Amino acid sequence: MRVAQERAGTLAPMDWFNQYESSVRSYIRSFPAVFTRAQGSQMWDMNGRTYIDFFSGAGALNYGHNNPRMKEKLIQYIQQDGIIHSLDMGTIAKAQFLEKLQEVIVKPRHLAYKVMFPGPTGTNAVESALKLARKATGRTTVVAFTNAFHGMTLGSLAVTGNRFKRNGAGVPLSNVVTVPYDNYLGSGFDSAEYLEQMLEDGGSGMSLPAAVIVETVQGEGGIHVARAQWLRRIEALCRQWEMALIVDDVQVGCGRAGTFFSFEEAGLSPDIVCLSKSISGFGLPMAINLIKSELDVFEPGEHNGTFRGHNAAFVTASEALEYWRTDALARDVQAKGAMIQKRLQGMAKRFSAMGAQVRGRGFIWGLALEPKSLAGAVSGEAFKRGLVLETSGPDSEVLKLLPALTIDKETLEQGLAILEDSLEAVARPI
Amino acid sequence: MRVAQERAGTLAPMDWFNQYESSVRSYIRSFPAVFTRAQGSQMWDMNGRTYIDFFSGAGALNYGHNNPRMKEKLIQYIQQDGIIHSLDMGTIAKAQFLEKLQEVIVKPRHLAYKVMFPGPTGTNAVESALKLARKATGRTTVVAFTNAFHGMTLGSLAVTGNRFKRNGAGVPLSNVVTVPYDNYLGSGFDSAEYLEQMLEDGGSGMSLPAAVIVETVQGEGGIHVARAQWLRRIEALCRQWEMALIVDDVQVGCGRAGTFFSFEEAGLSPDIVCLSKSISGFGLPMAINLIKSELDVFEPGEHNGTFRGHNAAFVTASEALEYWRTDALARDVQAKGAMIQKRLQGMAKRFSAMGAQVRGRGFIWGLALEPKSLAGAVSGEAFKRGLVLETSGPDSEVLKLLPALTIDKETLEQGLAILEDSLEAVARPI
Amino acid sequence: MRVAQERAGTLAPMDWFNQYESSVRSYIRSFPAVFTRAQGSQMWDMNGRTYIDFFSGAGALNYGHNNPRMKEKLIQYIQQDGIIHSLDMGTIAKAQFLEKLQEVIVKPRHLAYKVMFPGPTGTNAVESALKLARKATGRTTVVAFTNAFHGMTLGSLAVTGNRFKRNGAGVPLSNVVTVPYDNYLGSGFDSAEYLEQMLEDGGSGMSLPAAVIVETVQGEGGIHVARAQWLRRIEALCRQWEMALIVDDVQVGCGRAGTFFSFEEAGLSPDIVCLSKSISGFGLPMAINLIKSELDVFEPGEHNGTFRGHNAAFVTASEALEYWRTDALARDVQAKGAMIQKRLQGMAKRFSAMGAQVRGRGFIWGLALEPKSLAGAVSGEAFKRGLVLETSGPDSEVLKLLPALTIDKETLEQGLAILEDSLEAVARPI
Amino acid sequence: MRVAQERAGTLAPMDWFNQYESSVRSYIRSFPAVFTRAQGSQMWDMNGRTYIDFFSGAGALNYGHNNPRMKEKLIQYIQQDGIIHSLDMGTIAKAQFLEKLQEVIVKPRHLAYKVMFPGPTGTNAVESALKLARKATGRTTVVAFTNAFHGMTLGSLAVTGNRFKRNGAGVPLSNVVTVPYDNYLGSGFDSAEYLEQMLEDGGSGMSLPAAVIVETVQGEGGIHVARAQWLRRIEALCRQWEMALIVDDVQVGCGRAGTFFSFEEAGLSPDIVCLSKSISGFGLPMAINLIKSELDVFEPGEHNGTFRGHNAAFVTASEALEYWRTDALARDVQAKGAMIQKRLQGMAKRFSAMGAQVRGRGFIWGLALEPKSLAGAVSGEAFKRGLVLETSGPDSEVLKLLPALTIDKETLEQGLAILEDSLEAVARPI
Repeated sequence: MRVAQERAGTLAPMDWFNQYESSVRSYIRSFPAVFTRAQGSQMWDMNGRTYIDFFSGAGALNYGHNNPRMKEKLIQYIQQDGIIHSLDMGTIAKAQFLEKLQEVIVKPRHLAYKVMFPGPTGTNAVESALKLARKATGRTTVVAFTNAFHGMTLGSLAVTGNRFKRNGAGVPLSNVVTVPYDNYLGSGFDSAEYLEQMLEDGGSGMSLPAAVIVETVQGEGGIHVARAQWLRRIEALCRQWEMALIVDDVQVGCGRAGTFFSFEEAGLSPDIVCLSKSISGFGLPMAINLIKSELDVFEPGEHNGTFRGHNAAFVTASEALEYWRTDALARDVQAKGAMIQKRLQGMAKRFSAMGAQVRGRGFIWGLALEPKSLAGAVSGEAFKRGLVLETSGPDSEVLKLLPALTIDKETLEQGLAILEDSLEAVARPI
Repeated sequence: MRVAQERAGTLAPMDWFNQYESSVRSYIRSFPAVFTRAQGSQMWDMNGRTYIDFFSGAGALNYGHNNPRMKEKLIQYIQQDGIIHSLDMGTIAKAQFLEKLQEVIVKPRHLAYKVMFPGPTGTNAVESALKLARKATGRTTVVAFTNAFHGMTLGSLAVTGNRFKRNGAGVPLSNVVTVPYDNYLGSGFDSAEYLEQMLEDGGSGMSLPAAVIVETVQGEGGIHVARAQWLRRIEALCRQWEMALIVDDVQVGCGRAGTFFSFEEAGLSPDIVCLSKSISGFGLPMAINLIKSELDVFEPGEHNGTFRGHNAAFVTASEALEYWRTDALARDVQAKGAMIQKRLQGMAKRFSAMGAQVRGRGFIWGLALEPKSLAGAVSGEAFKRGLVLETSGPDSEVLKLLPALTIDKETLEQGLAILEDSLEAVARPI
Repeated sequence: MRVAQERAGTLAPMDWFNQYESSVRSYIRSFPAVFTRAQGSQMWDMNGRTYIDFFSGAGALNYGHNNPRMKEKLIQYIQQDGIIHSLDMGTIAKAQFLEKLQEVIVKPRHLAYKVMFPGPTGTNAVESALKLARKATGRTTVVAFTNAFHGMTLGSLAVTGNRFKRNGAGVPLSNVVTVPYDNYLGSGFDSAEYLEQMLEDGGSGMSLPAAVIVETVQGEGGIHVARAQWLRRIEALCRQWEMALIVDDVQVGCGRAGTFFSFEEAGLSPDIVCLSKSISGFGLPMAINLIKSELDVFEPGEHNGTFRGHNAAFVTASEALEYWRTDALARDVQAKGAMIQKRLQGMAKRFSAMGAQVRGRGFIWGLALEPKSLAGAVSGEAFKRGLVLETSGPDSEVLKLLPALTIDKETLEQGLAILEDSLEAVARPI
Repeated sequence: MRVAQERAGTLAPMDWFNQYESSVRSYIRSFPAVFTRAQGSQMWDMNGRTYIDFFSGAGALNYGHNNPRMKEKLIQYIQQDGIIHSLDMGTIAKAQFLEKLQEVIVKPRHLAYKVMFPGPTGTNAVESALKLARKATGRTTVVAFTNAFHGMTLGSLAVTGNRFKRNGAGVPLSNVVTVPYDNYLGSGFDSAEYLEQMLEDGGSGMSLPAAVIVETVQGEGGIHVARAQWLRRIEALCRQWEMALIVDDVQVGCGRAGTFFSFEEAGLSPDIVCLSKSISGFGLPMAINLIKSELDVFEPGEHNGTFRGHNAAFVTASEALEYWRTDALARDVQAKGAMIQKRLQGMAKRFSAMGAQVRGRGFIWGLALEPKSLAGAVSGEAFKRGLVLETSGPDSEVLKLLPALTIDKETLEQGLAILEDSLEAVARPI
């Protein structure tokens, strides 16, 4: 980047953010750098420093930064004047994506889905999933779970658990009943049973719901993993009470949980699957909903939006699906995931004074610390040492590890070593 | 595109849409083709047919398809492994966009705005604008206008007038009072006066609103142009009653109305300006809100979202702003706009039996026809003749002309000639 | 009243209110007295002062205080141990009321209504009317009018125009669209036409409504009288768009408008009529809804409430209906009403400097004054002179005359004379 | 009652209900008779049959029908032309009620409350309590409990658990979070602990609530008795999180639970207490809220309503309070209550095949049966045998015993014997 030449102003780049970007900006506060370039699991800032990326764009970069195969296809597409923006007109890039998705993902898993393009980001997918479920059932209530995260627009925010973010709405959020997520009240309480009682009891205060929306692993909420049997019980309730089962796989889909869909282990067959983040493979804005034909109830144009047809993303998305023609990536992810888990458990033992607790599955791992402020401190130390590592949970009390699925073992080890150093630095302040 | 080689399936591309895309797909029904390539104001489909584009991605391609200058910068950026996805971390591409926006757009117009990145599409911008206004004022009601279009997520849909789309919500939409847009009830009725009375009268049924959200020209609603004095009166009411003035410039900003912001002619100073569609210049998903510092009331992270940091779009957006260093484009657009108007008025006269009525401003023009189904028929004839031309309005009764601002006169003339032929074809069926 | 003997405390009665009644108390502030006894149109306070009552319990005492015929029946009923409270069990008092209502009121007017007992006060009637209309149509929106008053519970408050009272809800009020009442925007604007356009225009922002709820004369809103042709046009829109027409006759029914129902002059046939206030005739809490059989869609017990079966009120209500066996009362009311109107017009002329404006119909009259605070001052002067006279309107800017229908001419003249004196006192302060 | 003479029509009284009363009528279906007269715990129908009343107007007749002392005062008051209806003007009857309430009830219990007159029935009290709590805290959410019953107007219905009744609203009910009532999920689960976690956890999906509304015994919900320690824990959470504690004592207040307030045993100090039903003592419509001065935040007239000043009810209410000058009634009720409990437990043992389960406290008792339809059958048998006995619970699966507090032991025994016979009749069908 020819930074110096292109900038005539007198402000340093960081000043532009401080002076001209809204106070809502957030990650730049945790990671105070101006990045210029990235490749795979490495990033560089304008001062030439190198970072290992354990954040992966909050799960939008499962295949690493500037994945060479996708990059090549993308440049080629742009050079050939391919259609960049098409709304929902037909393009060859879109047809190819639809085809490859069916062939590589949907059909081999014995599923049957149509594809809806709801807009370019996760919250668009969630909003249209909720609209479809409500329209199809004629019901208004949706069941969501404690510590769920589904988005920031009014409909998605209503199914999001975070009080701080909910308050940002400025209006009461409605038509949602929040139920404890698996294990929310400890192992002695089965919240699926509680949901069942609420459905069966005509005095529970809950109207029959249109849908249940669930993440199989709660990422933003603090890395909570639902048990497969709990998920299956939720699905069974959906069948019994004719509620749509919506799986929000925006963050833990696209291989993050160790399989393409996060619900494969549990063997679910959701009515709607929301995908975004890594679906384009390259970090380009894109989101889709997979919907069963019974839920395909919108009239033409009943939901629309400008950036539903982002063909540059379809091109990289088609290339990304090549990773799933065999189970090689899945097996590799699971092997490396086991390694992460083992290393984290070692750290948890070593830093048991910090109440460290390991949670996760596949390639999404959390290390919860106490007191809650420790996680932020460790993240800060890690950044100083060249590791980009997010926190999550309602009080940002959990270190969240989301390395690229394609990370090589050496870089992964390096990152984990920095994490351990950072824990040590926080554990033993001078 | 090496279509044949890449596709192994037995379905034709159009079949993939018919069988695997949700029934909500819409434009592909009006424009039944599979497009492969586009340049400037021309598009090609997989059968090699050429089309003139008067649709411009519903206003997302104001600078034409694959604008060469932006294309070059974009390819260069990708080749150099520039950061593609950054959430709201700092990147050099983002800093440069912030800088250029201030220097080329905001400061020369004597405005003072911070920039919020609300997510990649228009509805994200509208939702966060509404959230900000409600949070800043502590009020919940928002005033919107008849035939407004602001988006499809619950908060934006609530301020959208279209009944068909509203019903898609599946829940009642609330916290909004709809007021007649300028001229909605004819020239004898001043709806700003009506709004004033509703504000002043403690018995009007309206709580004091947090904000008024307005398009200066209603695109989706059927090309309705508000008078400058009406807009100024709305702004004055906002000042008097301490309501935020939100101008949704998603469609008619970025030069579409003949100046960069659509409200320059009226001399407004909105509290929040929503921009999307053509802000990236290249059809890439991007949206921003310009907000006055009094409205910059979100805490860090109170609104978030994955694709707020789409740096590929920042690169093309910075290049697009180059068009506004001088007033050459604005003058050219106004001149060509006057030409469109004149030609349309000629057609309206010639086809007065179809009740043709010309409406518009700058480079957004509508031709309303009666009976209402005629517009769809003309659009269909135009497509057969190689012109992509949308309809709008609650009953799709208005032909909507949105050529690229950069269209050359010859192509523009050609497109207008096709339109006239198509009107004739519909007027005199064999 | 043996006040002195019965009270052992040291506080004066007025102190009990000041110290122990909620600050929400209101009329006691306008009429600072402790009343002990009342008969016909006269009231006495504990100091032995006599007052003429032009307030009539806000329209709940159309037949005067302690109407002798009803009083006799009531005492007899209680002495015989008649059922006082019956929920919706069958009682002879209730059967007799149902019978007499059909024979004296419903059938002679060629109407066909079932009776629902929704609870003992007006807001119960309005709430259940709204519930019925929404259930019967499957729609949620209700059209209400500016300056309407329908009650203080959440559903009724949502259709009430008063901003001050709406804010008391503490939550946003929803599912209602407020439309200008007849003449709200001056005689040049027909709000029925506006409503028609909102219904016909698919872009008006209004979902198809379940119902229109209307008062034919707005009492609390400041004595606004709708024209018969406007009411008929509203009714026609209800038929065309299959909305329920709900007439809230709580205040202006039971003869207040000069006929038993206020809509007789306009010849309406509402789908639901809400009655309360004077339906019991004696000031006892009672409310009913008259509903067409198509709207009789509640399942048994779907709406309930303890005091639906207040039989003491049924006894006096049956007696009150005797007044309507002939048209004698109606004719007398109309004659006296014309007299009031003439006298008020005289005062308006004399006190034109106070911007006095006469509005009303039948036996509900308003004198609007300017500046708005004058009405309260006149009411205060009147009270000092022995006349109980309410104000109404969003800013309490209208003197509201609601004498008992049974008032004798002499007392009526006396009251009007006091009103004129009071106007004079306010007009020419020493 | 001179029934025959007074009725000229050809329909039998029961036909009037069948033909002219709304289908929502309910108790008349369970108790198909036309009652004429009642005294104490006995009722007579028009065929001269006598019934024992274990229903007591759903708790509105705690002192029996036509209580002689109140009857005498009431007749005397009417004969003297006492004010019947006063809105919130001052009357001597109201002053006396306020005084006696403070002296006999509030002060001796070391409480400090102002009195609000919200309208004549329970739902008015609940609605205004919710409004006050929301206004005072600036929050919107209210915590309610499973199987709660608080009324049928929109605000009260939103805090009511019954799905069937909620659906009658025709609109989604919002701003409420329903939490399991004590013991709802069995004795192993403490729902107060769950509420605590929801309050503490910023990711629970619950905004900080304005209030918790609770019945100490759920009557309509199926006779569920909350433990004193659970209630105290709920109160402690209200203090900690600055939520208003609203006790809805409409049904179980006024002595029904064995003390005047139902929460005396638990030693609560609610912020608002809703009273209605038996507060007038005579079955006359009346409701009040007792509010702490911190909650007395309404402006004058911010909540109003016609029948807030039902003085006939104040007269009997004052007389009813005489019962509480000593603890004689309370002791008697507790003694008789113990007797009921013992007899019911005997029946439960005898009819254990019907899954009979005894629940209750003070003078409100339930006998839950299985299958759920049995309770209705037993109630029907009891009515045939001359006992009026309601069912409650979401599926009407619980026999509900609410005898008058003043019932003599002999009549009580007689009623219990009929109940046992009826159980036997249902248990052993011929």
